[in-house]
Amino acid sequence: MTNHEYYMKLALQNAMAMKGQTDPNPLVGSVIVNDSRIVGVGAHMKAGEPHAEIHAIRMAGDHTRGATIYVTLEPCSHHGRTGPCAVAIVEAGIRRVVIAALDPNPLVSGRGVAILREAGIEVIVGVCEEGSRKMNEVFNKFIVSGIPFVTLKSAVTMDGKTASYASDSKWITSEAAREDVHHLRNQNAAILVGVTTIIKDDSQLTTRVPNGRNPVRVILDSTLRLPLNAKVVTDGEAPTWIFTTSSYDPAKKKALEKAGVIVYVTGKEGRVDPAEVVRRLGEQMISSLLIEGGSEINASFFESRLVDKLVIYMAPKLIGGRGAPTFLEGTGLEKMNDAVEVSDLRVEAIGKDFKFTGYPIYKER
Amino acid sequence: MTNHEYYMKLALQNAMAMKGQTDPNPLVGSVIVNDSRIVGVGAHMKAGEPHAEIHAIRMAGDHTRGATIYVTLEPCSHHGRTGPCAVAIVEAGIRRVVIAALDPNPLVSGRGVAILREAGIEVIVGVCEEGSRKMNEVFNKFIVSGIPFVTLKSAVTMDGKTASYASDSKWITSEAAREDVHHLRNQNAAILVGVTTIIKDDSQLTTRVPNGRNPVRVILDSTLRLPLNAKVVTDGEAPTWIFTTSSYDPAKKKALEKAGVIVYVTGKEGRVDPAEVVRRLGEQMISSLLIEGGSEINASFFESRLVDKLVIYMAPKLIGGRGAPTFLEGTGLEKMNDAVEVSDLRVEAIGKDFKFTGYPIYKER
Repeated sequence: MTNHEYYMKLALQNAMAMKGQTDPNPLVGSVIVNDSRIVGVGAHMKAGEPHAEIHAIRMAGDHTRGATIYVTLEPCSHHGRTGPCAVAIVEAGIRRVVIAALDPNPLVSGRGVAILREAGIEVIVGVCEEGSRKMNEVFNKFIVSGIPFVTLKSAVTMDGKTASYASDSKWITSEAAREDVHHLRNQNAAILVGVTTIIKDDSQLTTRVPNGRNPVRVILDSTLRLPLNAKVVTDGEAPTWIFTTSSYDPAKKKALEKAGVIVYVTGKEGRVDPAEVVRRLGEQMISSLLIEGGSEINASFFESRLVDKLVIYMAPKLIGGRGAPTFLEGTGLEKMNDAVEVSDLRVEAIGKDFKFTGYPIYKER
Repeated sequence: MTNHEYYMKLALQNAMAMKGQTDPNPLVGSVIVNDSRIVGVGAHMKAGEPHAEIHAIRMAGDHTRGATIYVTLEPCSHHGRTGPCAVAIVEAGIRRVVIAALDPNPLVSGRGVAILREAGIEVIVGVCEEGSRKMNEVFNKFIVSGIPFVTLKSAVTMDGKTASYASDSKWITSEAAREDVHHLRNQNAAILVGVTTIIKDDSQLTTRVPNGRNPVRVILDSTLRLPLNAKVVTDGEAPTWIFTTSSYDPAKKKALEKAGVIVYVTGKEGRVDPAEVVRRLGEQMISSLLIEGGSEINASFFESRLVDKLVIYMAPKLIGGRGAPTFLEGTGLEKMNDAVEVSDLRVEAIGKDFKFTGYPIYKER
């Protein structure tokens, strides 16, 4: 590990510590080093409050003169509540700026670096870049595309099944893994299931994390079969939004709306179009979406290339059954050579189960 | 780690180093310690040659007086080429014997310990027991049951598929994982597939390990569809044994036998009965069987509770498809609660893929 990486890792750790409290802003951390001594640390803690660099500069005081600042994201070039951070860095007399990742927004990316270089400051970009990007994967996608970062979560047996041939799925994983799912719910702005999940289990789709934030409950329901006495309609724990098609029943729509549910009618008949769902969620400033759907809903998002991240829990058990579903069905791809690669696949033990995370890389078409 | 574990691990390492060269005998290692100094090490190296304890005792010479001997398997009580090891230990003046695991054979288990204790020697049993049992898992099953230890091997995508909906499976895993499979083939006395695998791919089922030992090729073929020009019939690389049913074609049987293939006719009609296959393989002194079958052959062995170990390679890719097979189909179990637990499930990275190994624990019926 180089010195640059050493200090940048500290900046990343400070940034990461604020996870969940900076929305809609990204996580950013900063460290200032002068003459081999750390003289300031900072992180962005809350939207509307100072950026990471400003906190670190204030902490460093006079020690900023001739110092090196490490920052996990390119210093901003726009006038927020505290003025552009790039200008503050120049004014603080800092001599060198080490940046993990440029601003993901193509409209401003590189502008902060330009301000710094014009002022004669040495700028190094790309130290621990991957760490910074991963940390802000949700922000980075949403700021650029306006559609939410989509995480597909599922639980499977070792032989790849999400349920028995008789649709029994209680329970696949152990308590520890199910607890972990509640953290995923807490971290996502919305959660999406098909109406059959509600009809079958009357799930609430809330998080059990103490002081957790319940995601908006998004239900795909092409003909409005959602029961009016379902918990997601009656419990008032979180907003419930239904996406239906033009085949909906108008009387049922009225009744659901009267119960406080928001009903979005999408353009296509048959199945709800996943691309339209995420576009409209983005319009509502939903930046992250957790899909806990069945095999076919999962496949419709996968085939629309909308799944950004996979979180799969695998339990050490076997159930068999040619009629038992896997987490990804649909038509599927014909050739193994055309299979979608999952990059950066990681595995960790959670209780008796394994948790996999990875990122599908869709090939150019 | 206690002192006992420290020395027993060395004994296990010596035993393990002989993997593949002791058949039909188990792997056994031994260490002799006198006054905190290692004075002898040994391992069983080849059937017909001395047992591990004898090698260690010879190396230790006079230093066996008052020493402690560590041995990964209970010293034998029977007269082999070098007399019972338990007696040799007594005669060497050893004061204490630390044993990892008792002899798995119920007919002799405990007899070695009895000889030692009768001679006034202190005996400790169970140090690193699991390590010793795992190391000899094949031997332990075969010696007790007379039927081979069965390993089911498969390769799956991250979404649990062994092929696309169109039966394309080339290739799921990377070269490194496929290389690993050749070591499995080298370690097993026989390999089993369904005849469709041969018809589709004309597989040779040999190992590519340099100086490797090809397993006996066992093919389930209920009506003798195996082509006479298949490589397993013509290549002479290893014996080929076919298990068929009473529905076989007698002329084809004659032709296959003329080509050197051995044909076993099993009792039942319809599908070949897995229990009969392993029983007859056991009669032929086949102690280990690697199943590289398709979903249905895998399921038939699983449902007959004959799969002892699973080795599953998972590739970081997604293919989808409700018609795509998983590695375990058949009817399957109805309730998730009745799923068969996989104990000691381990995962390791092999190239870009993951390799899982585990042991199904069938519930009492």
